[in-house]
Amino acid sequence: MLLYDSPVSGNCYKVRLLLAHLGIPYERRTVDVVDRSNRRELLGELNPSLRVPTLVLDDGRPLGESNAILCYFGEGTLFVPADKYERAQMFQWLFYEQYELEPALAVLRFWDTYSGRPDGLSGERREELTKAGHRVLATLDRHLRDREFLVGDGLTLADISLYAYTHVAHEGGWDVDGYPAVRTWLNRVAAEPGHVPIDA
Amino acid sequence: MLLYDSPVSGNCYKVRLLLAHLGIPYERRTVDVVDRSNRRELLGELNPSLRVPTLVLDDGRPLGESNAILCYFGEGTLFVPADKYERAQMFQWLFYEQYELEPALAVLRFWDTYSGRPDGLSGERREELTKAGHRVLATLDRHLRDREFLVGDGLTLADISLYAYTHVAHEGGWDVDGYPAVRTWLNRVAAEPGHVPIDA
Repeated sequence: MLLYDSPVSGNCYKVRLLLAHLGIPYERRTVDVVDRSNRRELLGELNPSLRVPTLVLDDGRPLGESNAILCYFGEGTLFVPADKYERAQMFQWLFYEQYELEPALAVLRFWDTYSGRPDGLSGERREELTKAGHRVLATLDRHLRDREFLVGDGLTLADISLYAYTHVAHEGGWDVDGYPAVRTWLNRVAAEPGHVPIDA
Repeated sequence: MLLYDSPVSGNCYKVRLLLAHLGIPYERRTVDVVDRSNRRELLGELNPSLRVPTLVLDDGRPLGESNAILCYFGEGTLFVPADKYERAQMFQWLFYEQYELEPALAVLRFWDTYSGRPDGLSGERREELTKAGHRVLATLDRHLRDREFLVGDGLTLADISLYAYTHVAHEGGWDVDGYPAVRTWLNRVAAEPGHVPIDA
């Protein structure tokens, strides 16, 4: 199995984190996330959105979208709740992650820390993303105040997915210590047996 | 069952379209999508993201995120492929929809047609979204050129989800006739038995 990967992308890290938890071996091929000029050549036949992660299964069939890859490998494991309503709540957080969390936390982090052009983002847009990130962190903090995990009482795909960019929020300028329930949850997810860091 | 709804929101329409296909009855409560001042009061206990659609099940338990609601009701029906890989492809399109399609098509459409302030979007941002919309339509066109539906050979949650904003792309200024495979697919989805229009 082959993962088109970026070592710094939280979206790729999600997939590596779940595969580590499941003990599934795979090969990694690093794709440049700054110079995207060869994307069509590299991923054109594999992923309509030309993004990483793109996974190629042993039989050659490709899969894109980080959270869809999580769903594929998570099915039938402890990381997907057996209860139908809890499963829907897990999906709710996965879609929230791609719609609200990633577009704020990942984008500002990319510009600030990985683009090579920390000034590439203009004032108003930067301010907008900073606010959006705080809104996301406040939403998570409220939700996690009386919970150990995002859904039910154990680690699910939702925690794995939302952990990826939240645990590096400081690289986009957010201080998670202002959100104590989020901080506690991050520590809890990182302490799970089988956990691997983003730079593993 | 109660749906916090907006008659013009594509995200809400997805849910109404699936429930129509499944023949599941529900009540609708319209929520203002321009004046959002009462969102916390209305949805604070129901949906961490304070957005519509928010669905309240008969037993009072809430669900948010349009595509998560589709997953909840689609499970075990013909609209979710029985094959594991096809199911993952369906998820791939659902996440693509929230990450790339909706943020382009829905946002420009909202400003142009429903915000009451068609000039509310500045030049550069407008241009960016127009381009992003064309990129999405071209991606769909390529994918649909030799396919009848997005995944497998029948209507799935992916078609229901992506149809919602694509079929009203003209309200954001895109001409779908420039993407003939998309046009054919839109007609095919609309011709399915059980289909209802957005203003039903």
